[in-house]
Amino acid sequence: MRVRKRKGAEALLAENPQYVILDPEAYKGKWHQVFGNDNPIHIEVGSGKGRFITGMAAANPDINYIGIDIQLSVLSYALDRVLEQDLPNVKLLRVDGSSLTNYFADAEIDRLYLNFSDPWPKKKHAKRRLTYKSFLETYQQILPAQGEIHFKTDNRGLFEYSLVSFSQYGMTLLGIWLDLHAANLEGNVMTEYEEKFSQKGQPIYRVEARFA
Amino acid sequence: MRVRKRKGAEALLAENPQYVILDPEAYKGKWHQVFGNDNPIHIEVGSGKGRFITGMAAANPDINYIGIDIQLSVLSYALDRVLEQDLPNVKLLRVDGSSLTNYFADAEIDRLYLNFSDPWPKKKHAKRRLTYKSFLETYQQILPAQGEIHFKTDNRGLFEYSLVSFSQYGMTLLGIWLDLHAANLEGNVMTEYEEKFSQKGQPIYRVEARFA
Repeated sequence: MRVRKRKGAEALLAENPQYVILDPEAYKGKWHQVFGNDNPIHIEVGSGKGRFITGMAAANPDINYIGIDIQLSVLSYALDRVLEQDLPNVKLLRVDGSSLTNYFADAEIDRLYLNFSDPWPKKKHAKRRLTYKSFLETYQQILPAQGEIHFKTDNRGLFEYSLVSFSQYGMTLLGIWLDLHAANLEGNVMTEYEEKFSQKGQPIYRVEARFA
Repeated sequence: MRVRKRKGAEALLAENPQYVILDPEAYKGKWHQVFGNDNPIHIEVGSGKGRFITGMAAANPDINYIGIDIQLSVLSYALDRVLEQDLPNVKLLRVDGSSLTNYFADAEIDRLYLNFSDPWPKKKHAKRRLTYKSFLETYQQILPAQGEIHFKTDNRGLFEYSLVSFSQYGMTLLGIWLDLHAANLEGNVMTEYEEKFSQKGQPIYRVEARFA
């Protein structure tokens, strides 16, 4: 997600340490202490403006959510939403998807969400796709033995690629939706992209996949 | 595929033993002898009116093709096409997809095609879908260790089901097409259904999956 640079974004993030963790490496292995409970922790890699993660957090108060995004301005808009709804079960991190093992101990995260990730359509950029093998290795390390990835996208090429990538990594597909909104999946929280694209009549693809 | 009953279909099949094998159990383990060569043998389960298998056979003279269908009239229309083109590398069998091990020895078949199989949309009929676990067991037995299934359909529900079924059986997905005709896959031979549905603008789904 690309957005215009927002003035004051950095200051806004720094002013809200109850939601924005600026030194996440300090909490590796200690995230349950950060949240102050033993509830499961779900992470969204590439949380964008935070509509999904705040919607999920409001609907599921017994689950902790960590949203990560590398872009300052984007993360600051997510913070707006968290502040509006005053959600104690959300933390935001400004980090990169490839460095997760710096911030999370083995099996510390219970589920991982990917929503409308950058498709990187050129073959030479395949390694940057968040479902590329090296990312799956990282996710596997921070998830438990049978940890799950829940992924949705409107991008056909990325979805085709990701199903094959999951399978060739040895993951098991638990459920597939080739037109999510035709299926009326209970509890589906839409992202901003999702609302925009599905209103145009484009199908939204979704998969749940499990390691091992 | 349901078609109107064709008068004389049974006689037509019986009159062409060079193409229609009415006693296939007699040739279990001997199909290379039947074809008179050592070329790979590919089978289409549910070959319908034979447009796919005759198209493939004409395009690939060094591969042997066996089309199976349980319906007499349907099989007789496939025979029309084989006769028209005089294709020595095609045989037709009037048998059922669940009984393949009666006619083929272990690893005797090199690849298996499923095209536009009956979707059996009701959950209680899931066991009849040609990608249900028990069918996969049968296919696995007649294919070699890393044998492949190539499957296409216009039916979203059947495709979603089949990807999950393949994965949960332990198969590896090699390639996925969520809009086959947008991808311009080289060598794609269309079935009659495929032409009809893709002309309506409906996406055709395709997958290549490998055992183990």
